[in-house]
Amino acid sequence: MVQNIQEVMPHIAFGGDYNPEQWDEKTWLEDAQLMKEAGVNLVSVAIFSWSVLEREEGQFDFSWLDRVLEILHEHGIGVALATATASPPAWLSKKYPEILAVQENGVPYQVGSRQQYSPNSKRFKLAIRRLVEELAERYKHHPALKMWHINNEYGCHLSECYSDESLDAFRQWLKKRYVSIDQLNQKWGTAFWSQRYNHWDEIQFPVNLPTFYNPSQKLDYKRFMDDAIFDLYLLEKEILREKTPEMPVFTNFMYEFKPLNYFKWAKETDLVTWDSYPDPREGRPFRHAMHHDLMRSLKDGAPFYLMEQVTSHVNWRDINLTKKPGEMRLWSYSTVARGGDGIMYFQWRQGRTGAEKFHGAMVPHSNNPKSRTYQEVKQLGNELKKLDALVGAEVKARVAIIFDWENWWAVELEGKPHNQLSYLNQVYAYYKFFYDNNIAVDFVTPMANLKKYSLVLAPMLYMVKTGYRENLERFVDDGGTLLVTFFSGIADEQDHIHLGGYPAPFRKLLGLTVEEFAPMAMEESNSIVANGQHATVTTWADIITLEGAKSLAHFKENWYAGKPAITTNRFGQGTAIYIGTSLEEDYLHHFLKGVTQQLKIDAPLEAPKGVEVVERVKGNKQFLFLLNHLEEPVNLLLDTAKTYQNGLTKEKVKNEITINKKDVVILVTD
Amino acid sequence: MVQNIQEVMPHIAFGGDYNPEQWDEKTWLEDAQLMKEAGVNLVSVAIFSWSVLEREEGQFDFSWLDRVLEILHEHGIGVALATATASPPAWLSKKYPEILAVQENGVPYQVGSRQQYSPNSKRFKLAIRRLVEELAERYKHHPALKMWHINNEYGCHLSECYSDESLDAFRQWLKKRYVSIDQLNQKWGTAFWSQRYNHWDEIQFPVNLPTFYNPSQKLDYKRFMDDAIFDLYLLEKEILREKTPEMPVFTNFMYEFKPLNYFKWAKETDLVTWDSYPDPREGRPFRHAMHHDLMRSLKDGAPFYLMEQVTSHVNWRDINLTKKPGEMRLWSYSTVARGGDGIMYFQWRQGRTGAEKFHGAMVPHSNNPKSRTYQEVKQLGNELKKLDALVGAEVKARVAIIFDWENWWAVELEGKPHNQLSYLNQVYAYYKFFYDNNIAVDFVTPMANLKKYSLVLAPMLYMVKTGYRENLERFVDDGGTLLVTFFSGIADEQDHIHLGGYPAPFRKLLGLTVEEFAPMAMEESNSIVANGQHATVTTWADIITLEGAKSLAHFKENWYAGKPAITTNRFGQGTAIYIGTSLEEDYLHHFLKGVTQQLKIDAPLEAPKGVEVVERVKGNKQFLFLLNHLEEPVNLLLDTAKTYQNGLTKEKVKNEITINKKDVVILVTD
Amino acid sequence: MVQNIQEVMPHIAFGGDYNPEQWDEKTWLEDAQLMKEAGVNLVSVAIFSWSVLEREEGQFDFSWLDRVLEILHEHGIGVALATATASPPAWLSKKYPEILAVQENGVPYQVGSRQQYSPNSKRFKLAIRRLVEELAERYKHHPALKMWHINNEYGCHLSECYSDESLDAFRQWLKKRYVSIDQLNQKWGTAFWSQRYNHWDEIQFPVNLPTFYNPSQKLDYKRFMDDAIFDLYLLEKEILREKTPEMPVFTNFMYEFKPLNYFKWAKETDLVTWDSYPDPREGRPFRHAMHHDLMRSLKDGAPFYLMEQVTSHVNWRDINLTKKPGEMRLWSYSTVARGGDGIMYFQWRQGRTGAEKFHGAMVPHSNNPKSRTYQEVKQLGNELKKLDALVGAEVKARVAIIFDWENWWAVELEGKPHNQLSYLNQVYAYYKFFYDNNIAVDFVTPMANLKKYSLVLAPMLYMVKTGYRENLERFVDDGGTLLVTFFSGIADEQDHIHLGGYPAPFRKLLGLTVEEFAPMAMEESNSIVANGQHATVTTWADIITLEGAKSLAHFKENWYAGKPAITTNRFGQGTAIYIGTSLEEDYLHHFLKGVTQQLKIDAPLEAPKGVEVVERVKGNKQFLFLLNHLEEPVNLLLDTAKTYQNGLTKEKVKNEITINKKDVVILVTD
Repeated sequence: MVQNIQEVMPHIAFGGDYNPEQWDEKTWLEDAQLMKEAGVNLVSVAIFSWSVLEREEGQFDFSWLDRVLEILHEHGIGVALATATASPPAWLSKKYPEILAVQENGVPYQVGSRQQYSPNSKRFKLAIRRLVEELAERYKHHPALKMWHINNEYGCHLSECYSDESLDAFRQWLKKRYVSIDQLNQKWGTAFWSQRYNHWDEIQFPVNLPTFYNPSQKLDYKRFMDDAIFDLYLLEKEILREKTPEMPVFTNFMYEFKPLNYFKWAKETDLVTWDSYPDPREGRPFRHAMHHDLMRSLKDGAPFYLMEQVTSHVNWRDINLTKKPGEMRLWSYSTVARGGDGIMYFQWRQGRTGAEKFHGAMVPHSNNPKSRTYQEVKQLGNELKKLDALVGAEVKARVAIIFDWENWWAVELEGKPHNQLSYLNQVYAYYKFFYDNNIAVDFVTPMANLKKYSLVLAPMLYMVKTGYRENLERFVDDGGTLLVTFFSGIADEQDHIHLGGYPAPFRKLLGLTVEEFAPMAMEESNSIVANGQHATVTTWADIITLEGAKSLAHFKENWYAGKPAITTNRFGQGTAIYIGTSLEEDYLHHFLKGVTQQLKIDAPLEAPKGVEVVERVKGNKQFLFLLNHLEEPVNLLLDTAKTYQNGLTKEKVKNEITINKKDVVILVTD
Repeated sequence: MVQNIQEVMPHIAFGGDYNPEQWDEKTWLEDAQLMKEAGVNLVSVAIFSWSVLEREEGQFDFSWLDRVLEILHEHGIGVALATATASPPAWLSKKYPEILAVQENGVPYQVGSRQQYSPNSKRFKLAIRRLVEELAERYKHHPALKMWHINNEYGCHLSECYSDESLDAFRQWLKKRYVSIDQLNQKWGTAFWSQRYNHWDEIQFPVNLPTFYNPSQKLDYKRFMDDAIFDLYLLEKEILREKTPEMPVFTNFMYEFKPLNYFKWAKETDLVTWDSYPDPREGRPFRHAMHHDLMRSLKDGAPFYLMEQVTSHVNWRDINLTKKPGEMRLWSYSTVARGGDGIMYFQWRQGRTGAEKFHGAMVPHSNNPKSRTYQEVKQLGNELKKLDALVGAEVKARVAIIFDWENWWAVELEGKPHNQLSYLNQVYAYYKFFYDNNIAVDFVTPMANLKKYSLVLAPMLYMVKTGYRENLERFVDDGGTLLVTFFSGIADEQDHIHLGGYPAPFRKLLGLTVEEFAPMAMEESNSIVANGQHATVTTWADIITLEGAKSLAHFKENWYAGKPAITTNRFGQGTAIYIGTSLEEDYLHHFLKGVTQQLKIDAPLEAPKGVEVVERVKGNKQFLFLLNHLEEPVNLLLDTAKTYQNGLTKEKVKNEITINKKDVVILVTD
Repeated sequence: MVQNIQEVMPHIAFGGDYNPEQWDEKTWLEDAQLMKEAGVNLVSVAIFSWSVLEREEGQFDFSWLDRVLEILHEHGIGVALATATASPPAWLSKKYPEILAVQENGVPYQVGSRQQYSPNSKRFKLAIRRLVEELAERYKHHPALKMWHINNEYGCHLSECYSDESLDAFRQWLKKRYVSIDQLNQKWGTAFWSQRYNHWDEIQFPVNLPTFYNPSQKLDYKRFMDDAIFDLYLLEKEILREKTPEMPVFTNFMYEFKPLNYFKWAKETDLVTWDSYPDPREGRPFRHAMHHDLMRSLKDGAPFYLMEQVTSHVNWRDINLTKKPGEMRLWSYSTVARGGDGIMYFQWRQGRTGAEKFHGAMVPHSNNPKSRTYQEVKQLGNELKKLDALVGAEVKARVAIIFDWENWWAVELEGKPHNQLSYLNQVYAYYKFFYDNNIAVDFVTPMANLKKYSLVLAPMLYMVKTGYRENLERFVDDGGTLLVTFFSGIADEQDHIHLGGYPAPFRKLLGLTVEEFAPMAMEESNSIVANGQHATVTTWADIITLEGAKSLAHFKENWYAGKPAITTNRFGQGTAIYIGTSLEEDYLHHFLKGVTQQLKIDAPLEAPKGVEVVERVKGNKQFLFLLNHLEEPVNLLLDTAKTYQNGLTKEKVKNEITINKKDVVILVTD
């Protein structure tokens, strides 16, 4: 039985990736000392160590790692031990070239960077099995071991492979999914363009085509690759589970990462962890906040670890701006506020060599403990020690946004009415209202139990699989408010059209038919009129015929002037709203303000724009995070009925509180 | 002896691509009923049916097609039966991989899309021969069969192939063209850059080169591929001609399609058909009109069929705008006005699956007969029934524009003085004057008999082959007016320079020498002065020395200020005008107005800008098309000496006529 | 013992590439006559003649070249005989495909263009050895032969090759460099990302990688390819030296050419020659001037030949503007002023065929001796005859800019803090001040003897190899002024970080530490304050801590407001200035004005902006070049103590001189 993560780490985890193989033992000792001073309690070790752990096939050298773990343990620092499979060594592909992933043009990827393996290589699976077994066997009882860190950022550079072995695997996967070739022909619509297959081995990858691919095939290829990479993860997990049944395992996820369906993955992890690198150029990182909320939602609200962030600046953007003083700390607290129980960095010590030597770290090139970077790390690490009580606390939300990876894949396939539509941007647009207004939001799959929510949003839910309609109808029927936006309800899970008038599965729920789509050119816009108010709309206009719904706003111009743009429909005990265009931000926020006010959905505390307010709850204890992103101090009036304790200073707080610029206050009640 | 197309179809053809293999028999019956209501009299069937007709090599299943043709025939709908060769089935390339076309990098195209075949594959030719023979044998006496639709949009995605078999074929083609390798060396100018060949098998494709290609070689590669694809067409045509000597054959052409020399192709078709997809974003589609005029010109003015257009919107642009109400009808009448005797669509019923499911169709996804789309189709189909008298009528033009595919290829090869020059844009610029002024224009090859024209334009006729000079001189000598523009008369058919001063073949005719070219940077402009008038010019300035010609305008600025920009030269009984720069539209139209007025070239009827006027003539009968592209009604004064009948309402019309916004009136006289 | 170039050519060399194999003998005779009239005294022959010299393997035909050399010699025209190896014939790669260079995707380059060979092909080396030996043997005593022109623009299109043979060669090269694989692992930092190698044959090219390459490996690949191409050059040179020990050899360099370390190459040439093609769009070509100064510096100030320029316009840009009347002559004199003892063109006669037929030449397509082109050539050729006294004269500079090819390679590898930094642009920015102010500048390597300079600039000297620090410290210690700019002193020759605080090797010399880099986004800027003056800065800000240096300017905004931006440090007898940001041009020039004034570094003569003043010196003789780039005449006051002779008119000049617009005056003193 796996240990609960809060048992293993009853503190906010603080630390980072640690790559001792790049340094000598003298530095290891210096590292451990500096870590201790900085409040580090967990480090990820051995992420890229394969070639120094298994130096030739089957010849293992654990001596250096033994010593590293010993030093860390002596200094009271726990270890998330990586399985080291993220970057296979050169000898492996020299001996077995079939482990190399292959590009669209048939050229294999090569050693000299990282992650050059094909997820479908049987030989690669044998190799990782041997490595992980050896590693687990060696360290399963090591006292420093706190959890297993499987691989690293699965799929990061390579989420497609076009090797012969991958083609075989793709055909096997299809056989399993469709059983008969006739079924595949039907599900892929191969009557179109004479694409019928007689035999499984006629099937090819959806690349190197003269023109547009078969969208059902492309979609299945995406599913197949997600599964293939997932199988790699499961392979490692099973070994580790067997060797160390109580030890939690995780793999670190990424943000805005389309190829992997993390809702599926999260079910097989004991802890959601992810790597976050907001671009400082963007100022206050609201997308970063959304990713926190999404990551927290992957395992039904369980706290997550931020497994990688950077102290200062990355090196893989075109121009790498640095975080200003205070930003790293403030954004870290935003993480904690939204469910983060771990704040980790890539990496501990800035590298001297290699492709990431200009990537910031907890200890910079100067090795100067007085450096701004190390000082900020040290301050934060020592503060977080005061928040043990917070560990495991939840965020409670009455609003949910549907987020569906398969929909993301499908709606962004080519050949659509408007091919500049971004699923993420549609979701961001709606999320931002709640962020700006300090209203907690969960993310859910379309089949989630929606009972606990008052308001559910379904932005551009293009793909509607079996059961989605019923689940959403049930939610509304039971009194919920559902908001659906344009280009929803169009296709089934094969990316075949739901016939009978758009959006066929939702026509009854929404009380309307969309007769036609009228996408707008980039330079084009229209406006809508709602209660005498005007607002600009862009991108898309649905030509709507009401079938029971009521129009809340209509288009003002073009040949569809006067036709509904926003509608509302009573359905059972609830309401289904439809937005058939892309609204400018001001109006969208105004509209959503109306919706949330009517549903009495509020922020935990009223605060001026620029002040982030988030509440975490554990038992009777409430932790109210007040983050001041502004350049001046703010004064907030508190609920006079309550008494708070300042979680960091431990002072009593009543009636009001002043928060310095770029500072945070955590008010604790019970 | 092939039947005349007007005998086969004594009506305006109306219908579209029909892909019944994507639907069940119940839908087929519904289709036939809806077609009948919409006035459909012709459909193209089986375009992408190979994989369901020949399910394994040599195993044919015609049962479903028998039933489809039976149903169509029962409903009085004729069939343009496609040869189904446009998209080979997966089993074919599985068994014979050599049929696959190959990319520049040596990677074959694959199944999963369409048209993946190499035009040079002998095995592919065997396969299409078998299919076409079976098909022709089966249906040669079928009463629904009206004509043969060969393949589909030849070369659409693939007009280049780099397979070994293509390389052999290229070498054979060269051997046939040049006989000796010494001749090839001379004609390719291989003394340059040490490119001399000793043997035919040393010759490679003009790709994968460290830098600029040999232009003569590249040009020949374009000729070769055009011929290779043409051979495929001829192969099918010959089979069909043998089986059904009376049955017309065609293949559908495309617009702005550079790889195929349609003047050559048209000679071997019984009917010119083409596919037109103007972007609604551009508003009134004047290019569309030019393509009509070009297509009508391919077979010396014979009426053509618009084989594909869309009711509403395509799905293969980045953002696919939809046609506004009335535009599809209005633009269809522009087609008819300019020589179109057929109005067909891709496709009949909007697909549920595959890459084109968001492409508009005559019956939309909703299957709603009340939908705007179907209603507009039905209205047009039933109107066109009233225009049987028009079938076969001609458009008479006194103006011709030279259009030459080989010149297009040559002038856009790399390494030119100005590499942003577009042949099409140069032609469009001159055509637009005539379009805007409702003056009929034919397109001709440089070797055409020009007797019937008063004015001939040769925009950027860079490549001047043997005989061109004499043909144009003869035209001017006999009293014609010729207008030549910059970068004309530069190279011969091998793309070798005509030495002796630009434009060597035309110096005598034009009475000048171009000493130098002075291309302008994108941000640069100059101006010209003509009779005290100033106009902006861009792109290019020729440095002209007069040798008999008279300057009509000179440059105002830069080091060549004062030098001639436009000249005119008496030559025999006629006049040769030269324009040595790129004129802004206003001035160009002003200038051409002067030229046409002097030649008394007029519109059939005076009309405000935005009203398209085109005349078709059949025997004594005149059909005057008045198309109002404006957003308000217009009133036109008619020739009071004539009495007209409204071709659609059959009412009498005299003295004047009012045309509603976006509406059309066809006035018929006799 | 090689003859001094001034002995061989005691005149300013004047002529161009001559490709007689493209023309007939009649034209050869006409050419020689026109050359004579134009003052041509040297032509490069046979550059692309391999396929007509060696028509089949080992079968040579020199008859036509014999005749060409005979004609030239009869007309008194010297020959720089090319070795004809730049473009191998088709038969060679047909027989030995392994000579073809290979692209990243594994596809070989092909014949049909030029330079398709792999520099690492042993078979290719055999082939050039045979050709060069035959050629040298044949013409070693020919009286027309003045010097050997080896190959042509080495590396122009192909400076990378990914063939198997190249991979072997790369491994051999690495073995030689690092001796043991452990050493390589350390020097490449392969502990990062598990990149450790056990055996040499595990090493691959740094391409086809899933993500960022290993920078040390990439840098070595650049070194390897430079060496590989250099070896080709040495191979030819050795043959020629053996056959003709007295005959000078050269190969023509290119401008802004990153792949070849010309400082290394120049040591093995007897004459620096290069090809210059400034874009006329840019107006006055200051970069062109910088290249002259760089080329002159490659061999410690020895005069160079401009081996290729164009009379009018090239054909390989997108839009090819033509030089205005006078510009070719004026820019040619700028070349001569900066150390050019040869003015040559590509090419003599404009081609009729092939990829460069629209490239300008000394004789245009019209073959018209009255053409502007030929007239300008003739004028210049006949003027240059008057400047024999100048041949061999030097340019004396008190300022040097460090220019280092390996630094160029290293600083522009990916993964940097700011990946839009261009080394050339940084150098241009500093050079431009000296150009605008007519102050002579040399370019030097970081290890050069700097004694003769008062001011040395080191723009963005990112890579600091062993010895650089000591050399620069010595220079300053001895009283020199050194100016270093941001992102200098960061990495060693393996591109590993110099640890211990940036810029570690220069901290003592500069008296500071750079704590952090703060790159700026493209749209971002800041300003600095210096003595109450404000100036805009962009791109980059160093966060500087002073350690002895004095701040001359500080940042005004952002979180590092008040921190130093420009500093100065006394070091021994001299001064070390640091500029930690990118200064706007006005302020940079103002700042450098102050520095040069303090050092009493002046122009040879005061002149208004737009007038270029350069001095060459030979013994006691001074040649003062006054080039008026303006569109009006200028009057210059001369040193009244001196008397001059006008080098072209031979008139006496005193007190003042008027120079016509776009004209040049050369004042000679003794």
